[in-house]
Amino acid sequence: MSEPTPAPIAEPVAQDVKKDAPLDENGQPLSKGEIKRREKEAAKRPKEQAAKEKKAAEEANDTAADNYGKLPLHQSQERSGRARLSFESLMAPDAASQYPESQTVLIRARVHNSRAQGAKMAFVTLRQQTLTLQGVVAISKEGDEHAVTKQMVKYATGIPAESIVLVEGVIKPAEVKSCTVQTCEVQIRKIHTIVEVTQRLPFGVDEASRTEADYAKEDTQFARVNLDTRLDNRVMDLRTPVNQAIFRVQSAVCQLFREQLNSLGFIEIHSPKLQGAATESGSSVFEVSYFKGKAFLAQSPQLAKQMCIAGDMERVYEIGPVFRAEDSNTHRHLCEFTGLDLEMAIEEHYHEGLKQKYSNEVATIATQFPCDEFTWLDETLKLAFADGIKMLKDAGAKNLDGSELSESDDLSTENERWLGRLVKEKYGTDYYILDKFPLAIRPFYTMPDATNPALSNSYDFFMRGEEILSGAQRIHDPEFLIQRMKECGIEPASMQGYIDAFNLGAPPHAGGGIGLERVVMLFLKLGNIRRASLFPRDPKRLNP
Amino acid sequence: MSEPTPAPIAEPVAQDVKKDAPLDENGQPLSKGEIKRREKEAAKRPKEQAAKEKKAAEEANDTAADNYGKLPLHQSQERSGRARLSFESLMAPDAASQYPESQTVLIRARVHNSRAQGAKMAFVTLRQQTLTLQGVVAISKEGDEHAVTKQMVKYATGIPAESIVLVEGVIKPAEVKSCTVQTCEVQIRKIHTIVEVTQRLPFGVDEASRTEADYAKEDTQFARVNLDTRLDNRVMDLRTPVNQAIFRVQSAVCQLFREQLNSLGFIEIHSPKLQGAATESGSSVFEVSYFKGKAFLAQSPQLAKQMCIAGDMERVYEIGPVFRAEDSNTHRHLCEFTGLDLEMAIEEHYHEGLKQKYSNEVATIATQFPCDEFTWLDETLKLAFADGIKMLKDAGAKNLDGSELSESDDLSTENERWLGRLVKEKYGTDYYILDKFPLAIRPFYTMPDATNPALSNSYDFFMRGEEILSGAQRIHDPEFLIQRMKECGIEPASMQGYIDAFNLGAPPHAGGGIGLERVVMLFLKLGNIRRASLFPRDPKRLNP
Repeated sequence: MSEPTPAPIAEPVAQDVKKDAPLDENGQPLSKGEIKRREKEAAKRPKEQAAKEKKAAEEANDTAADNYGKLPLHQSQERSGRARLSFESLMAPDAASQYPESQTVLIRARVHNSRAQGAKMAFVTLRQQTLTLQGVVAISKEGDEHAVTKQMVKYATGIPAESIVLVEGVIKPAEVKSCTVQTCEVQIRKIHTIVEVTQRLPFGVDEASRTEADYAKEDTQFARVNLDTRLDNRVMDLRTPVNQAIFRVQSAVCQLFREQLNSLGFIEIHSPKLQGAATESGSSVFEVSYFKGKAFLAQSPQLAKQMCIAGDMERVYEIGPVFRAEDSNTHRHLCEFTGLDLEMAIEEHYHEGLKQKYSNEVATIATQFPCDEFTWLDETLKLAFADGIKMLKDAGAKNLDGSELSESDDLSTENERWLGRLVKEKYGTDYYILDKFPLAIRPFYTMPDATNPALSNSYDFFMRGEEILSGAQRIHDPEFLIQRMKECGIEPASMQGYIDAFNLGAPPHAGGGIGLERVVMLFLKLGNIRRASLFPRDPKRLNP
Repeated sequence: MSEPTPAPIAEPVAQDVKKDAPLDENGQPLSKGEIKRREKEAAKRPKEQAAKEKKAAEEANDTAADNYGKLPLHQSQERSGRARLSFESLMAPDAASQYPESQTVLIRARVHNSRAQGAKMAFVTLRQQTLTLQGVVAISKEGDEHAVTKQMVKYATGIPAESIVLVEGVIKPAEVKSCTVQTCEVQIRKIHTIVEVTQRLPFGVDEASRTEADYAKEDTQFARVNLDTRLDNRVMDLRTPVNQAIFRVQSAVCQLFREQLNSLGFIEIHSPKLQGAATESGSSVFEVSYFKGKAFLAQSPQLAKQMCIAGDMERVYEIGPVFRAEDSNTHRHLCEFTGLDLEMAIEEHYHEGLKQKYSNEVATIATQFPCDEFTWLDETLKLAFADGIKMLKDAGAKNLDGSELSESDDLSTENERWLGRLVKEKYGTDYYILDKFPLAIRPFYTMPDATNPALSNSYDFFMRGEEILSGAQRIHDPEFLIQRMKECGIEPASMQGYIDAFNLGAPPHAGGGIGLERVVMLFLKLGNIRRASLFPRDPKRLNP
């Protein structure tokens, strides 16, 4: 079901013809005979190449001819079941002692780099994800059982970086400072290329892994690999240890979010991203051609998750893509990001579960990835919005236009950061909650405060002065909801399905949402949200 | 971050103005004074209504006036912290003994139905998700501490079904056959409406929960609630016990998939749904207006997950939406569904991990939700496609057009089911793998078989004669990939980012995908995939 039809065709696909026949250069279906002929030819090609290389080696009278060279195309031809070594098992200080000399190991790895040491030896640095191991190809001496020849050393030296090799060899103790596996190396007896990289690399993994300290050295003149170059060649960029780590952290954040919510009786939902109307905010919604009509991409699962609460699901969460057609080219905006959203029926108060729901969780994640000193309190600080404004005013902060701050204005990004610094000074925490935002600056579905109708039952979580989570009690009364929609300039008829849910009775409820990439950016201080997105999408980037 | 700006405005949103001011009826921003005036008015409304009701009760000289009525709008006014009772704690046979008469319990629940028993008593069936509890409102006798009056009984009788109430009462042993809590009831001392449902219901929960047995009864003439009516009123429909269960199963399937893959070292990814080109299959892709250009919705995470493998992520999976612009109005097609996709580097053979990867997992899910006898083998049957065709031919099966079956043709849905029955007869299993599909009917990125180029290293999993999972080894060689694209009529230049990933070297790899809704439909024999989707999307349905 997940593999769509391969060939583009003009006509709608008939129901039971799941896969389409290949077409020729003119768009006409190939005959079966022609398909077979082409397939045979295709299958022959890599075999021929491998045979050619082997023959050349044999002609050169090379006794090691079987021990190196390019393998035929991997088509699952063989299945020996022989285990292959993971470099992780070599990270223990005494790892080498577990691999006797009589026993060779088999390794699939990338060639990180390779270089000759005279004509008799080559060093091949092998890489598996974040780990590197030194490989040595040294010409065999008289009496050695195995054959390593001059030709084989030459072959090993010439394997292009980033090629993937299958190595057979012996693990030996060695002190290797230049690799992550520092207590041993592999003495290579066979080295075959599984995948040869012939294309010129846009940049090397080492080049893309340099630190500020490297650039600061006086005697070096490294060119930086800039972010656009990285993103244009994201596959290459993903191989750097930093990126390998970032996306493990990203995956872990989702696991923690889920584990926490699962343990509290939430269930995971999958709500539709295709919507019949441009909901929530008409200005930043993407339009989709939907058969003969139009659809719109959901800007959040807000409406759907509230409808699930009206459908008696009580506690739901979703992790999924969120689309924003905002023409914002900043370090913290994406046109598509991953939302971690939750919604729950509440009994008495929208602060219910605030502590169990988020506070622990966010703190857990923060302690697990402490990239920098990050201070927080056992009892998360909850600051009223009005008090935050007062702190800023006392410190001399103004609005962007130079006017005085007021309790009904939103905070600028700069003032958010300023408040973060003030809170840190006064309360000693990098992490706090700003509660009771002015109603006028929150979305239409936000519940007003019970006593001061200019305020709302809503809050933001701040980390290092940047908002990472927004939450609120929602309006569950349909008439009041319609009134608020009108006040906010939204046509209720455009969201009839949503209003219907409240006409059928929805319990009082509250919820919130986190932007995954933003949280990862802030935790790891990445400085740009694109670094926390596998293949980022912004107004200027849709590829790769 | 997850709560977008509330008001639609024509101009792009400036970067730091996250939330927009409400607009008046003419689309002009409201003044601050006017916003405040409107908010105060809005906040007054529900309070006034509650006060009016209470006053009316008091005027009637009702001693129980404080014990019933409509509550003011829930705005998190109070926080007593008093626990509320979950019906689950009443499911044990001796549950009533744990609630002494001296201690009242507090319950939030829906009114499933309510009816008078003379003028002195009312039965109010209370519902929490799938569970119901009988509530009794009986006029208090002389000497009773609590006051339940005639007016209160009348009020309770009149609460519309599906309203949400807050009930205070005492748990008493009772034999109640009509509720799921069958060993006790709640004697109600206070009943207040939190949310009153005044709208006429499209159908009742009981009505939508009837079984075939109910319809078969001779003396009844129930009208069926048809699927379209249910989907048009999905929020109401979701409250039925069957739907409450379906979406817990759906959530559980995802959890099992994740747990299994996490334990095998896979990491979860989030790939972009917005693509720069109409990839994979031009005919069934949705087009999106993307600023001044166009984008397309991903038909699967196929390209992105392979690119992650080329980026050395080794083992990845994704659970996310998948979009198919197929104009298919069948029981098993949706325009948006949830894909469970995985991809991994392989060492020797594309069957690696097949057992650990899927077989156990799928069987685990099947045994956990055994809605029907479902037989399977300890060692999953792996049948060659050619052998399947032979079994069908021997049984007399033909193609849809009446022609003879051949080893290079795809199976029709009907023949898939037929083969399922033949396999069940011969091997005694409802669950098997069909391996080595003809290359011509698989997507362009499928790796051909090493010995027979007309076949491919690909397979489908079948459950009860329907395909639930597709998997294959992929082509990792860029030249060969380009050749196959051309043979399949796809312009390589349209997928340059994808090809680049292979130019940078990708290890041999394999993967597969499951459609979540289809699996849930088949496990639970739901008969229509829409029943397994929260808010289904098909060519004719974009709402709610």
